[in-house]
Amino acid sequence: MTDMAELPSEPSSWLSDRELRQVRSEMPILYVNVVPVRTDAVGLVTEVALLLRADEGVMSRALVAGRVMYHETIRDAIVRNLEKDLGLAALARIPLSPTPFAIAEYFPTPDFGTFHDSRQHAVALSYVVAIDGECEPSQNALDIVWISAEEAATDEIAAEMSGGQHVLLRHALAHCGVLSG
Amino acid sequence: MTDMAELPSEPSSWLSDRELRQVRSEMPILYVNVVPVRTDAVGLVTEVALLLRADEGVMSRALVAGRVMYHETIRDAIVRNLEKDLGLAALARIPLSPTPFAIAEYFPTPDFGTFHDSRQHAVALSYVVAIDGECEPSQNALDIVWISAEEAATDEIAAEMSGGQHVLLRHALAHCGVLSG
Amino acid sequence: MTDMAELPSEPSSWLSDRELRQVRSEMPILYVNVVPVRTDAVGLVTEVALLLRADEGVMSRALVAGRVMYHETIRDAIVRNLEKDLGLAALARIPLSPTPFAIAEYFPTPDFGTFHDSRQHAVALSYVVAIDGECEPSQNALDIVWISAEEAATDEIAAEMSGGQHVLLRHALAHCGVLSG
Amino acid sequence: MTDMAELPSEPSSWLSDRELRQVRSEMPILYVNVVPVRTDAVGLVTEVALLLRADEGVMSRALVAGRVMYHETIRDAIVRNLEKDLGLAALARIPLSPTPFAIAEYFPTPDFGTFHDSRQHAVALSYVVAIDGECEPSQNALDIVWISAEEAATDEIAAEMSGGQHVLLRHALAHCGVLSG
Repeated sequence: MTDMAELPSEPSSWLSDRELRQVRSEMPILYVNVVPVRTDAVGLVTEVALLLRADEGVMSRALVAGRVMYHETIRDAIVRNLEKDLGLAALARIPLSPTPFAIAEYFPTPDFGTFHDSRQHAVALSYVVAIDGECEPSQNALDIVWISAEEAATDEIAAEMSGGQHVLLRHALAHCGVLSG
Repeated sequence: MTDMAELPSEPSSWLSDRELRQVRSEMPILYVNVVPVRTDAVGLVTEVALLLRADEGVMSRALVAGRVMYHETIRDAIVRNLEKDLGLAALARIPLSPTPFAIAEYFPTPDFGTFHDSRQHAVALSYVVAIDGECEPSQNALDIVWISAEEAATDEIAAEMSGGQHVLLRHALAHCGVLSG
Repeated sequence: MTDMAELPSEPSSWLSDRELRQVRSEMPILYVNVVPVRTDAVGLVTEVALLLRADEGVMSRALVAGRVMYHETIRDAIVRNLEKDLGLAALARIPLSPTPFAIAEYFPTPDFGTFHDSRQHAVALSYVVAIDGECEPSQNALDIVWISAEEAATDEIAAEMSGGQHVLLRHALAHCGVLSG
Repeated sequence: MTDMAELPSEPSSWLSDRELRQVRSEMPILYVNVVPVRTDAVGLVTEVALLLRADEGVMSRALVAGRVMYHETIRDAIVRNLEKDLGLAALARIPLSPTPFAIAEYFPTPDFGTFHDSRQHAVALSYVVAIDGECEPSQNALDIVWISAEEAATDEIAAEMSGGQHVLLRHALAHCGVLSG
């Protein structure tokens, strides 16, 4: 299993890389996770966007993810990380409430809990966000692929996700009332 | 205290008025309540819309409210009742999840519970919905008035709402992270 | 697919059977659905209780379900329906908040939506409730069977549930953070 | 305004005090906030416990609060911080779901956002937890005082809380359906 790999290319303006490595071994790191979706006219989720990434030669699909920075609101962290992963033309409808639909707890120890991140103990406030515009992949991803809500819930997609994120994706679909399986 | 008075003018196409009166004395009636809001670019609630109504000569402010009809999804009921109360140009962003932020239980017995509706036992699934377009009042309301999120939380506004809806309004503001009082 | 079959034996003290049939063809009926669970010392769900029922010769597993009665609070409806299905010694920890983790919309039309109830359009406020005592089946169920949280998420259990309730069960497990699949 | 002052006496086994001060100026720190309550037999909140504290000679009332430690689950952090603030005999019913009812974002900058903590940027996952046993104050608090749900919502109590926690307390009461004001 691999990481919520937004970090290699994220400018770490608040902490040096060395300091961040140090803190990561001592504190849980606050993240946001976002499931980007398209909806029909009445708000029903029809499609989900997953980032296509290559980590050490292995292809995987991932959710939007990133840290909350010092003195940054959750709301601003959602906006910034969506822009980082989906580009500036995504036209995201940021949630009205900062209360997440789920908390994903990533632990560095294999098989400890549902979610895994080999670099750190990360706690991700998780949101579903509707995207009205166009997405373009950043340097963190090879591509952004839209799939139907039905396909997003399949075992095939689950097998292509890492760190347990397919569990969070399915939870998001259930939360939006679009799991029928 | 008065009623969630959408009903005098709502076409009751599934039940005759007499049948509806009968059922209302025997079953809880399923409603949706909606707090219409405007947001800034990052989704923070800045304004709230309240319906201005005159019931038997008394002015009051009310939330969007209406029944869920037979074989209607919650999602469609939200859309229909928003159109009924705010018009067709409101451009509402319907919530991604059908899970409400609160359940408002209206009882016909005065001082039984927080919410009161003299006509019926109504259970309202309650949502906050962002409005991007223009609102125009239906025949149920004299006007639709936008007020700031700060003003919406004041005792003055609470005094102008009926049936306990100011409690639901404040809960909505807290849910959206915009209560500072 | 069959029904949330609590009704054959439920005393329908507010409406005659004939009246209830009539109303069921004209209004959505308000229900509660409950997923009964056992937890470890820190509140982690370890087991789930499912009702074992025989409907027209077909065995199935079901969640606790029942109507909200006229002038009954949601809280009282949860208590009453738990007592109806699990007996008086269940020692349920009733949720602190009336806000459900999910809304399950059951439609009588096959393949319209996730949840199906051939008798009616039912809208179920859905809760997970911890059970500290002993359960005994009412006349509505042959038995109450506790299974592990892991088993509850399997396709085998899903195949034994009807009306789409396995989707709600899995959503409950995800909500409680105990889906690892 | 003062701090969520659990820290002076908390053993900081993962970071030295100097390291913690350093990290606090560079990263948001993950906390849990807990509103401890007593309920009646059907789960309705009847009383709220507040910690009575003296910070630099000023008396204030506070919620249970504390950090999430490295490699600690949210669930374990709730248990540990409840034991820290309420003692070992509190018999807390830990929530079934790790999803908080609210996220409280504390910033060190005065008047930036609803919640304030002069020491740090803290993000607190917030829960309401039922307490069945007896509480005794730790060295962090002078006393633990139970007040009625009605009193908890008053302006008098609000005036005695700091850092904006009265907003979170009222949100908790609204979430539990016990605000009538």
